[in-house]
Amino acid sequence: MNNLFGWSDTTWLALDQIGILVGNLMLAATILGAAVGYFNRDRLRRWLTPNRFPTVGADMAGRQWSGIVFTVSKTEVPLWVIEQLKPNCIGLVATPQSMKAADEVMEIAESRGIEVLPPRQLDDPNSPSESLEKTRELLTAMHRAGCTPCAVEITGGKTPMSLGAFMAAEEMRADTLYVSVGYDQKLNRSDIRSARLQCISMPD
Amino acid sequence: MNNLFGWSDTTWLALDQIGILVGNLMLAATILGAAVGYFNRDRLRRWLTPNRFPTVGADMAGRQWSGIVFTVSKTEVPLWVIEQLKPNCIGLVATPQSMKAADEVMEIAESRGIEVLPPRQLDDPNSPSESLEKTRELLTAMHRAGCTPCAVEITGGKTPMSLGAFMAAEEMRADTLYVSVGYDQKLNRSDIRSARLQCISMPD
Repeated sequence: MNNLFGWSDTTWLALDQIGILVGNLMLAATILGAAVGYFNRDRLRRWLTPNRFPTVGADMAGRQWSGIVFTVSKTEVPLWVIEQLKPNCIGLVATPQSMKAADEVMEIAESRGIEVLPPRQLDDPNSPSESLEKTRELLTAMHRAGCTPCAVEITGGKTPMSLGAFMAAEEMRADTLYVSVGYDQKLNRSDIRSARLQCISMPD
Repeated sequence: MNNLFGWSDTTWLALDQIGILVGNLMLAATILGAAVGYFNRDRLRRWLTPNRFPTVGADMAGRQWSGIVFTVSKTEVPLWVIEQLKPNCIGLVATPQSMKAADEVMEIAESRGIEVLPPRQLDDPNSPSESLEKTRELLTAMHRAGCTPCAVEITGGKTPMSLGAFMAAEEMRADTLYVSVGYDQKLNRSDIRSARLQCISMPD
């Protein structure tokens, strides 16, 4: 019996057995790695998949949303958006200062047959985490009520509040909308007639 | 015939057979896992890919950043943050209206020995995609210059600009900072002495 390359039986056996041993170690390592990976799955995923925003500032012509969550400062922007998009259901996130405006929006929306979820009030208008949580609550309630697709309109409120609402929208795969309003120099206030709706991000 | 390490034939056969057995179990588990994964593929995809924000509004005590990108409205907030955090390198994203303020910040920062990347100007202050792109450029330049860790300070600018900068920060795993400034009712302007730095999101 001629061995390949003329190496001895002992050499071939050693090679085979090294293969067996390394193979067994590999199996053990794979199982161990899978276990470690499983228990660290959140860290692993964060490392593998940083947040991505594939569709920013895209054209939203013709898109329709059944539910819309608003961050509320004043009544103008939410009422204008409701007029434009005619959603079935809305949710409102307000601060102590804007709670009155939120109640007003709720009243007008209800008078038009739109379902309004109970407005959520933030204790701290500078807290992104509070805004994230309340927006998530409202989006979850909308999903449960079968009100999809949803969008979050983040024009109102201070930047941390808008950012919190945006994060909730991204987590729940809702689109994010923003209304840019021109400023009327003569009247010294924003002019809703110049309002333009734009899509900040579309996760899907 | 000499076995490797002098172990008996029985031992090697046992190791081999353990390999075969575990290999078969692994194969079975892989096939089963693939089947379960296939039938839950939509859930799996949703679990794997929505954007997540695990650390929102966290305590940032003691954290240091080597590079900071600012969205600029006025000079006050960037200068205050530079004073507090003493970064090695800064980048500035400005609008046509705030370009003058950005130049002023650059001059003062350079006089303190801080490296300043050439300021980026947005054509449209309402465009999140433009802000995302410019912020990404600045963060990439900082990474190349070895200036890590980085943060993005998003207080300045309108909401779409802040959101664009935030998205760039998340994509590049940079922290996002925000400065809340109290309002002085007597002087009828914001009062930088009441400024408080907070962390909006820490991706890592």
